[in-house]
Amino acid sequence: MSLVVVGSVAFDSVRGPHGCVDRMLGGSATYFSIAASYFTSVRVVGVVGDDFADEHHSVLLTRGVCTQGLERVAGKTFFWAGEYSANMNERETLDTQLNVFATFQPKLPPHYRQAPFLFLGNIDPELQFAVAHQMESPVLIAGDTMNFWIEGKRAELIRTLSKIHALIINDSEARQLSGEYNLLKAGRAIQSMGPETIVIKRGDNGATMLQGQEIFSVPALPLEEVYDPTGAGDSFAGGFMGYLASHGSNNGGLTHAKFRRAIIYGSVMGSFAVEKFGVDRLLHLTREDIDARLHEFQRLMHFE
Amino acid sequence: MSLVVVGSVAFDSVRGPHGCVDRMLGGSATYFSIAASYFTSVRVVGVVGDDFADEHHSVLLTRGVCTQGLERVAGKTFFWAGEYSANMNERETLDTQLNVFATFQPKLPPHYRQAPFLFLGNIDPELQFAVAHQMESPVLIAGDTMNFWIEGKRAELIRTLSKIHALIINDSEARQLSGEYNLLKAGRAIQSMGPETIVIKRGDNGATMLQGQEIFSVPALPLEEVYDPTGAGDSFAGGFMGYLASHGSNNGGLTHAKFRRAIIYGSVMGSFAVEKFGVDRLLHLTREDIDARLHEFQRLMHFE
Repeated sequence: MSLVVVGSVAFDSVRGPHGCVDRMLGGSATYFSIAASYFTSVRVVGVVGDDFADEHHSVLLTRGVCTQGLERVAGKTFFWAGEYSANMNERETLDTQLNVFATFQPKLPPHYRQAPFLFLGNIDPELQFAVAHQMESPVLIAGDTMNFWIEGKRAELIRTLSKIHALIINDSEARQLSGEYNLLKAGRAIQSMGPETIVIKRGDNGATMLQGQEIFSVPALPLEEVYDPTGAGDSFAGGFMGYLASHGSNNGGLTHAKFRRAIIYGSVMGSFAVEKFGVDRLLHLTREDIDARLHEFQRLMHFE
Repeated sequence: MSLVVVGSVAFDSVRGPHGCVDRMLGGSATYFSIAASYFTSVRVVGVVGDDFADEHHSVLLTRGVCTQGLERVAGKTFFWAGEYSANMNERETLDTQLNVFATFQPKLPPHYRQAPFLFLGNIDPELQFAVAHQMESPVLIAGDTMNFWIEGKRAELIRTLSKIHALIINDSEARQLSGEYNLLKAGRAIQSMGPETIVIKRGDNGATMLQGQEIFSVPALPLEEVYDPTGAGDSFAGGFMGYLASHGSNNGGLTHAKFRRAIIYGSVMGSFAVEKFGVDRLLHLTREDIDARLHEFQRLMHFE
């Protein structure tokens, strides 16, 4: 079933111990769309400037992503530059230029509004709320957020949380949003704000999902080389939502077991994302590669 | 089969957000012995002072631990005091008094030397080497160490590593010992120093085991309340080694699958240890409690 994502489409410059890449295609909606495209049909909502060339557009098109909701306006595309530490465990933002993203007002083409699955990438919670409100018969709405909105637009964020079914955030954001250091307490506190399902991304420590009273935890796949962690969390969300959309139906059918498997597919897509710079690794996968890595997770976690 | 442990027996004073407890029974060999005692017969080697009363001794005896190798000498028992931060994620040592432990020379009673399983707790690697050397026909020798020995007695530690089959250490120690930040690379580097099996304890992020080319990772059980993390790692080691000793045989029989299950039993015992101050929770378990928690881990990690 079709899956709509709203978020940033950007150019990223990344420096790290494995090299530097300038102005490569990035942004939360880009990573999400490409990761999810291996599972279901994806429709992106975003904004780009007039520096967004056909070669960039075609990256999304070759993955079958519908770009009818990708608005092009005069000006420059959102630009981000960052540098990773020698151990890849810290990231410093060197530059952020919102450009055309500063005045982004998501516009959903009419056929997008009928999509049963929606992912609200990390944008202003007021815009997230407006997009969620436009959906006609959503089966599952999930969202992400970040420290900037938790600090600056808390009330608006909490209003958005009351509209979504699942929140996918990292551990430090879960702590900040809830005021609880303990992740189980943090997850429970966020559940009480609305979403029944809380997915806490823990970087190279894996992920934990709370759904109702159920708890599911997975370790990360140990990787010897991490080239570029940018977009890993968005790729995780793409694998997670893409898998769910491929198994959902209008009248539900999303069992807890499917959410557990979706966490593994999210982890799989996140693990691929970091193996090369930008979306390079994500673009050159087969469904066999993805399922082979799912089996690696099974082997990693299996005991008798 | 019987399991010998050499390590510290101590009094600990612990402060934290859930309260303070003065001079309670602690030490690596104490936590290890009690945790392992639910699986197999345990023989402890250590030293205590004349302040070690019958009430302390009887804690070990009631768990069926053989204390023939627990030497009593004039002076005071090893004392440690520490304080946990409000989030329980940092620990500050307030006081360390080695006392009789400063001149500890482990002496193994003759019947200890025939034990097939040995755990070398975190003591001077020269003493660890000497103890390992005294064993007549060991099936499995595992050890622990810490930053103090990695920095101060590196050559001696590396000699000890050449004698042991498994090293059980925490993530920061694995990084320090190997010089590698990436835990997979760190584990591989330590394997090349001798031990085929490396167990990396990651606190509330779980544990990862490398055994030959196999990798097994488990998340930690999410707990809402952690009262006292002191001894969690030693309790983990006790559950791990205790389970293996209960399933080992003189001619081997320790399959990789048994090591995976041992990691779960280690995680189970570590999760119990932190639920009350000191050894209090560990002392009042049944085998049913332990297996119920093993099922919690199965549920936590299960996917289809």
